[in-house]
Amino acid sequence: MLSYWCEQAWLPPGRVARRVRLDVADGAVAAIAEDVEPGDARRLAGLVLPGFANAHSHAFHRALRGRTSVGRGDFWTWRQQMYAVAERLDPDSYLRLATAVYAEMALAGITCVGEFHYLHHGPGGTPYDDPNVMQAALADAAAAAGIRITLIDTCYLTGGIGRPLEGAQLRFGDGDADRWAARELARTAGRHVRFGAAVHSVRAVPADQIATVAESAQARDNRLHVHLSEQPAENDACRAAYGCTPTELLAKARALGPSMVAIHATHLTDLDVRLLGFHHVEVCFCPTTERDLADGIGPARQLADAGCRLSLGSDSHAIIDPFEEMRALEMHERLASGERGRFDVPALIQVASRMGHRALGWPEAGRIALGTPADLVAVGLDSPRTAGGDDPAATAVFAATAADVTDVVVGGRPVVREGVHLRVPDVG
Amino acid sequence: MLSYWCEQAWLPPGRVARRVRLDVADGAVAAIAEDVEPGDARRLAGLVLPGFANAHSHAFHRALRGRTSVGRGDFWTWRQQMYAVAERLDPDSYLRLATAVYAEMALAGITCVGEFHYLHHGPGGTPYDDPNVMQAALADAAAAAGIRITLIDTCYLTGGIGRPLEGAQLRFGDGDADRWAARELARTAGRHVRFGAAVHSVRAVPADQIATVAESAQARDNRLHVHLSEQPAENDACRAAYGCTPTELLAKARALGPSMVAIHATHLTDLDVRLLGFHHVEVCFCPTTERDLADGIGPARQLADAGCRLSLGSDSHAIIDPFEEMRALEMHERLASGERGRFDVPALIQVASRMGHRALGWPEAGRIALGTPADLVAVGLDSPRTAGGDDPAATAVFAATAADVTDVVVGGRPVVREGVHLRVPDVG
Repeated sequence: MLSYWCEQAWLPPGRVARRVRLDVADGAVAAIAEDVEPGDARRLAGLVLPGFANAHSHAFHRALRGRTSVGRGDFWTWRQQMYAVAERLDPDSYLRLATAVYAEMALAGITCVGEFHYLHHGPGGTPYDDPNVMQAALADAAAAAGIRITLIDTCYLTGGIGRPLEGAQLRFGDGDADRWAARELARTAGRHVRFGAAVHSVRAVPADQIATVAESAQARDNRLHVHLSEQPAENDACRAAYGCTPTELLAKARALGPSMVAIHATHLTDLDVRLLGFHHVEVCFCPTTERDLADGIGPARQLADAGCRLSLGSDSHAIIDPFEEMRALEMHERLASGERGRFDVPALIQVASRMGHRALGWPEAGRIALGTPADLVAVGLDSPRTAGGDDPAATAVFAATAADVTDVVVGGRPVVREGVHLRVPDVG
Repeated sequence: MLSYWCEQAWLPPGRVARRVRLDVADGAVAAIAEDVEPGDARRLAGLVLPGFANAHSHAFHRALRGRTSVGRGDFWTWRQQMYAVAERLDPDSYLRLATAVYAEMALAGITCVGEFHYLHHGPGGTPYDDPNVMQAALADAAAAAGIRITLIDTCYLTGGIGRPLEGAQLRFGDGDADRWAARELARTAGRHVRFGAAVHSVRAVPADQIATVAESAQARDNRLHVHLSEQPAENDACRAAYGCTPTELLAKARALGPSMVAIHATHLTDLDVRLLGFHHVEVCFCPTTERDLADGIGPARQLADAGCRLSLGSDSHAIIDPFEEMRALEMHERLASGERGRFDVPALIQVASRMGHRALGWPEAGRIALGTPADLVAVGLDSPRTAGGDDPAATAVFAATAADVTDVVVGGRPVVREGVHLRVPDVG
């Protein structure tokens, strides 16, 4: 039996335990003992946290880092550059790119990624022989990087409300929601792979087809993800076409519910917030992307108070750093509200780990407890950034960065040791 | 003669040059050659930037990291905790603390720090035998850490407009501005030490004594720093007492001018912005602190357009990372404006290096040019964060962190090599 000994570990419901031995069997935690000697267990120094879930990823956007951030303009200018990358990828090149991206995630302590995937087809929209080969490449990339993946198969039918797909967008489209569902059903899972479904946005799926996607997701017990009100222009277009907000449109399509995950939710009305809360919709914030793309600051605390669970995603991968995302959720709240302590440390860790795993259909993961997957992240507490604190969890959340992750274990197996990825050399 | 060879270097006015050899004599750059072989020069990989200036530091606040960030409340609640640390320090313990803080700065690429110093006296306000012994400790700390320092001697007379100092504040006070000036004049400089002066804020220096501090600074050719409108409550108190904004009060005291550096400048009126711009006041933003303390987002772009030069400081040291400060200046603008590209990459590097050095009275430093101090920072371009970009400067500004700094040279002497501080072991 494999065992790990943690100098300090974050145990439910939210406390730092010391000298913790974790025995692992079949990838899960089989025994937990506190205040014990390490014995022959593998030693993890610093603070051991449950693995982080990155609940919203577009892997190929990583290729834009250090290129488009310099640009002027807004979200829509950036989108044109993103499409230029999308046009160039094929299954082989996407496997290589995504392997590097997921390895970067592993190095940052992310043990489960939700890939919001819409780059389904070949150039011009011609399906590949295997119409799901692009997401098979993503599953292979996650396996190579040693992390779990939820393939969130995204329905993307229009290039705006009432507008056909064009250019790179042709690669995203299945024609209609029924054909999307038929293709999506043909996918095959794996031990490290689970499925989700998505409506790209109310821009990209006509109102009368949203229900088809939502019902298909419900029938398969998959979570339904939706980009929601990231930009004011989306709200304006929705109001012009349908006379209501995107949230209201999703409510009419009976898509709102506890198995839905709204991405961004930046520009909401008070009624939107009440609707999302009433239906216990989960909301995934992507703070480092939302600031990079000049989206704005969404009402995170209001949504949580209304009844929504929150999770976090690195989305465009301008930065891949779950510590920075946790911090930014709280920091953006501070900037908008003038108050500190809008989310406390246990809440921020919960958002980054357990809630993210829920949003991705791994409800058993994201905490260190008996019977849960042994997904562990050791954060060094002796770096220039983390030294000197007296509260290890607060230090990890408010002072650490991805560079302070020393060891990562997924399903009991070491993936990162002393800051080095054990399977993907020379990440990048 | 000592020489460095840079794989890539950022040269004025703002371009990446390749294969650059820098010869150093008497701490300054004596020759620059591009597209040459390394020969026997010390090799610096990645991108070499000019050393960063941290234009606003309160070294002892570093002791609060991972302690107060977890707190609720606002700026004023945080200030009580900060005072509790201030009460405990003496010259010996401050030397040890500041050495670690400045070594953390060196590791992050900061080669010059501006210490906004007001912890002048012993407990209860009793002067030490040498009344400047606390700042002598700071100078020694900077020497130990291998960086330059500007000791910004701060006049701090009242605990709010019309209120006496109390508690820890007693250690800050000199009684009046004339006694402040007499003490300040007794300081002695060093090769790595220059001087500045400060009015702590309009809260802490009565209106009729601000001019005394400003004139003393002008007479010594020192820059005059002032905390300005960080919190709405400061503006309210100023309006109530004087019937004008803090900026207007400084204008009446004839303190505004190109040798003044306003810190924060978060909550300004349009007239304030025009006044600061008209007088070419420099403005030091502290974005990671301003978000941590829930201060808000100041009008950086407006101030720059009005005629102000900008610089950056890590202030409370919630984070010490000049890359994060550069990014945050732009990202906070994006969040507030909904637009990207408010500051371009050359502008952000200029703000973090040259403009910061100007604000600290080292106008010759902060760029790699003939005759300037050989202060160099090498940023690795092959980390998980920085790999894959095609624009080294954009990658450094938008993707790198302090953890990507590999080598730091100050005045031609190596201070950090391969991420390790050469003089201060086990930083922290």
